[in-house]
Amino acid sequence: MTNTQVTLAQIDNYGPWTVTPNPRKEVDLQTLQSRLYADLSQLVGMHGGYVFFTRFDNMVAITNGLDLEDHARIQESIGNRYPVTLSFGIGTSTSPRDALVDATALLQEAGSAQDAERAEVLAGQTTEPTPAEDDDVHLAHFDVNDATGEYTDELDAYSTFIHIEQAYASLMRYLHDAHDGLAFFVGGDNVIAVVPDLERAAYEDAIRHVREDVDMDLKVGVGSGVTAQDAGMAAKHALEICREDGTHVEGL
Amino acid sequence: MTNTQVTLAQIDNYGPWTVTPNPRKEVDLQTLQSRLYADLSQLVGMHGGYVFFTRFDNMVAITNGLDLEDHARIQESIGNRYPVTLSFGIGTSTSPRDALVDATALLQEAGSAQDAERAEVLAGQTTEPTPAEDDDVHLAHFDVNDATGEYTDELDAYSTFIHIEQAYASLMRYLHDAHDGLAFFVGGDNVIAVVPDLERAAYEDAIRHVREDVDMDLKVGVGSGVTAQDAGMAAKHALEICREDGTHVEGL
Amino acid sequence: MTNTQVTLAQIDNYGPWTVTPNPRKEVDLQTLQSRLYADLSQLVGMHGGYVFFTRFDNMVAITNGLDLEDHARIQESIGNRYPVTLSFGIGTSTSPRDALVDATALLQEAGSAQDAERAEVLAGQTTEPTPAEDDDVHLAHFDVNDATGEYTDELDAYSTFIHIEQAYASLMRYLHDAHDGLAFFVGGDNVIAVVPDLERAAYEDAIRHVREDVDMDLKVGVGSGVTAQDAGMAAKHALEICREDGTHVEGL
Amino acid sequence: MTNTQVTLAQIDNYGPWTVTPNPRKEVDLQTLQSRLYADLSQLVGMHGGYVFFTRFDNMVAITNGLDLEDHARIQESIGNRYPVTLSFGIGTSTSPRDALVDATALLQEAGSAQDAERAEVLAGQTTEPTPAEDDDVHLAHFDVNDATGEYTDELDAYSTFIHIEQAYASLMRYLHDAHDGLAFFVGGDNVIAVVPDLERAAYEDAIRHVREDVDMDLKVGVGSGVTAQDAGMAAKHALEICREDGTHVEGL
Repeated sequence: MTNTQVTLAQIDNYGPWTVTPNPRKEVDLQTLQSRLYADLSQLVGMHGGYVFFTRFDNMVAITNGLDLEDHARIQESIGNRYPVTLSFGIGTSTSPRDALVDATALLQEAGSAQDAERAEVLAGQTTEPTPAEDDDVHLAHFDVNDATGEYTDELDAYSTFIHIEQAYASLMRYLHDAHDGLAFFVGGDNVIAVVPDLERAAYEDAIRHVREDVDMDLKVGVGSGVTAQDAGMAAKHALEICREDGTHVEGL
Repeated sequence: MTNTQVTLAQIDNYGPWTVTPNPRKEVDLQTLQSRLYADLSQLVGMHGGYVFFTRFDNMVAITNGLDLEDHARIQESIGNRYPVTLSFGIGTSTSPRDALVDATALLQEAGSAQDAERAEVLAGQTTEPTPAEDDDVHLAHFDVNDATGEYTDELDAYSTFIHIEQAYASLMRYLHDAHDGLAFFVGGDNVIAVVPDLERAAYEDAIRHVREDVDMDLKVGVGSGVTAQDAGMAAKHALEICREDGTHVEGL
Repeated sequence: MTNTQVTLAQIDNYGPWTVTPNPRKEVDLQTLQSRLYADLSQLVGMHGGYVFFTRFDNMVAITNGLDLEDHARIQESIGNRYPVTLSFGIGTSTSPRDALVDATALLQEAGSAQDAERAEVLAGQTTEPTPAEDDDVHLAHFDVNDATGEYTDELDAYSTFIHIEQAYASLMRYLHDAHDGLAFFVGGDNVIAVVPDLERAAYEDAIRHVREDVDMDLKVGVGSGVTAQDAGMAAKHALEICREDGTHVEGL
Repeated sequence: MTNTQVTLAQIDNYGPWTVTPNPRKEVDLQTLQSRLYADLSQLVGMHGGYVFFTRFDNMVAITNGLDLEDHARIQESIGNRYPVTLSFGIGTSTSPRDALVDATALLQEAGSAQDAERAEVLAGQTTEPTPAEDDDVHLAHFDVNDATGEYTDELDAYSTFIHIEQAYASLMRYLHDAHDGLAFFVGGDNVIAVVPDLERAAYEDAIRHVREDVDMDLKVGVGSGVTAQDAGMAAKHALEICREDGTHVEGL
């Protein structure tokens, strides 16, 4: 049964920091944010987890396989190497959406994202002592059919970007509202969604929704596993089957 | 007069590389992409330019102040340190939109984004020998009014993310279609747009459009300069005035 | 009983790569090397291990706590993100010196460091299935007494550097030849040595040797643990006691 | 005429920071130091300069081509992205040794390396307004003859390391005391020295000194230029001629 562990990682008091005492150079903020994300990806990834950059000051991670001590060590490592600190809220649920709702509530109870006193909160419980199961995490890896041939090599880069962005926006709202899933753009024309245990019909419906909404054709590979990495790699292989066979949903 | 120099940076043959010989671990791809972006930001930023992560495999940069040799040295530096290479197409125009259209066309003429033979293309011309002017680059820095109080501290993290994303999607399409501007999400609740020389009414119209379209309140600081960094820092200071005075458009 | 697991990490065919087809820019090589070292430190460190930069193209790691699969995943992660690959030879022994001799021999048997065909070798066995013990790893953390007051704030930077370097050179040879230890400069005025289970007299002797050899006064904190990190943190705390109490050897 | 501009970069109050409030994890310190060095290399390198890691908390840079404003922007960029700050002392001289003596004195006058109040000092003058000349910077790039065949593939890794280290220690003291040069290990079996305008006899003498002192055979390529990068690339090409022709000194 799905048992997704979701961690909300929030940079403490980041907004005020970026303009104190004066606005900091944008190039430095961009570098700071993207490297902090890369480091968090590696640290969480060593335990099999995934991190999505989301808004960069608020990142969402799938952390099945990481206990509280692992979270604390990651906070310490970031705190030792960056001028900012991270707070973590952790939620678990059969619904990824509910898990993130719980994770967010824990951080909000601890204080505002712009509270200068709130730092390195670690709130919530991990899936332990429930034993890990092969279907704890379900990931769906979507991409756009022939994105290079239809868009990248044909339209100007911004028009392609608008198309990709529209498909993503349509998909993220649909999966969230209709199926309790959390979808994230991960670069190129790729979206990875953490989802409950959905039927094939749900994926076909999601793809149809995006086609009707914004006229973009998606395909999806689905995978399950003990960790995000296991599920994600299974989803990637399923997506490769879509590519080879010209199908739209594989892995179920 | 506006004379924006836009560079399209495209990772060569990236899609096929990510699945050769088998799909590579997502955590490594995320780390690679975000660090490549961070490095490109620093390298371009040393000359006063801005890079936007866009789709990560296709990044858009404002490169006034960088000549062809600067571009070539950046390609060399990335090529020496990453397992992938970058191609650059460069366009200049009074319209940022047109500049990117030209930059894209140059790369498309050189070959497909998934052409294994196309590598480290450097195509296009920079603004030289036209002398740099104080109004070559116009940047508009938007954010959401009281994003922390209205969204981050109130809604769950994904619902906040959907709201921010909708405002951004609405703004990016409006600025592009109505005003030849290119808007990019830069983290948190911030969007930076490279624009032509627009009147105050255009910004008020854009903010009204987003409010009517998705019920989100934006404000904007506008700045001009010889480089993106000069224009961007002026825009940030103008945005601080909005915050202090409760206004919606400053810097014009 | 001491059971040190030492991994020799060697960049494959690095020398030829740095001059193919022409010498690559030194700034890029320096960046590549130091970031590769930083990444390896984090990846090994997530499992409790330590990496020493040594010659950068040949790095020595204390890897108790990492099995062969962990090593393979680290190779894969580096291979996915860098233009070069790493080979690993692993040795275990009650003598750190012998462990590294064995680790080196395994790589040499697999091919030359400049063999274009040899890539991502993973050779040797880890300590498993022997159960981990609290005294598997012994680390000694040395520094120079009042280095800032005696050297950094008094002499020019290069003369200080020569003094520090001489103390380190004297210590590294002594510990290796007399006590089977491997000492590494880790920055500032600090040297960390992985050692067998030594008596207090051995440390006093080493400190006396350096004083007589190059007229520099050292102190040392010693610690033991299941992993390098456990032993290293105990050694740091012992060194703090030296600082507070004005003693020369603590932690035994 | 030689006119070397040397910058001493010192992390402010680093020693106390590493143990406040308790000793920080060594893996994080190693990562912080090596990434800070990599970033400084890139930032200085964009202007043609070289940085040597030296002791990591004290780094030496050849900064011909960078003015005071460039130095200030680099300090700002590091300060925006790291939990520590950098102070810079700048000296210029026909003698690299004297330039670093002057650079060090300026920082020492501003306060101790462990003064909690001293931060982001920028002291000294650059070579301006003296016009840059083709022979402002002289670099000598040394390596060990057949290091792979004689050492890396033959001895255990630590014994090789001791040999390389001894050659380097012998060379650094000789060049400093006899010829006012500053030599730095840069990884592998490579040493780069910034030197005055020396005759061929001086290099032959240095190589003979190392051979007699520690029985290691070196060769050297020498280059000059307006910046460290120009001089360094010329030196690398000269060293390649040594490799091809079996000679010991090239580039003069």
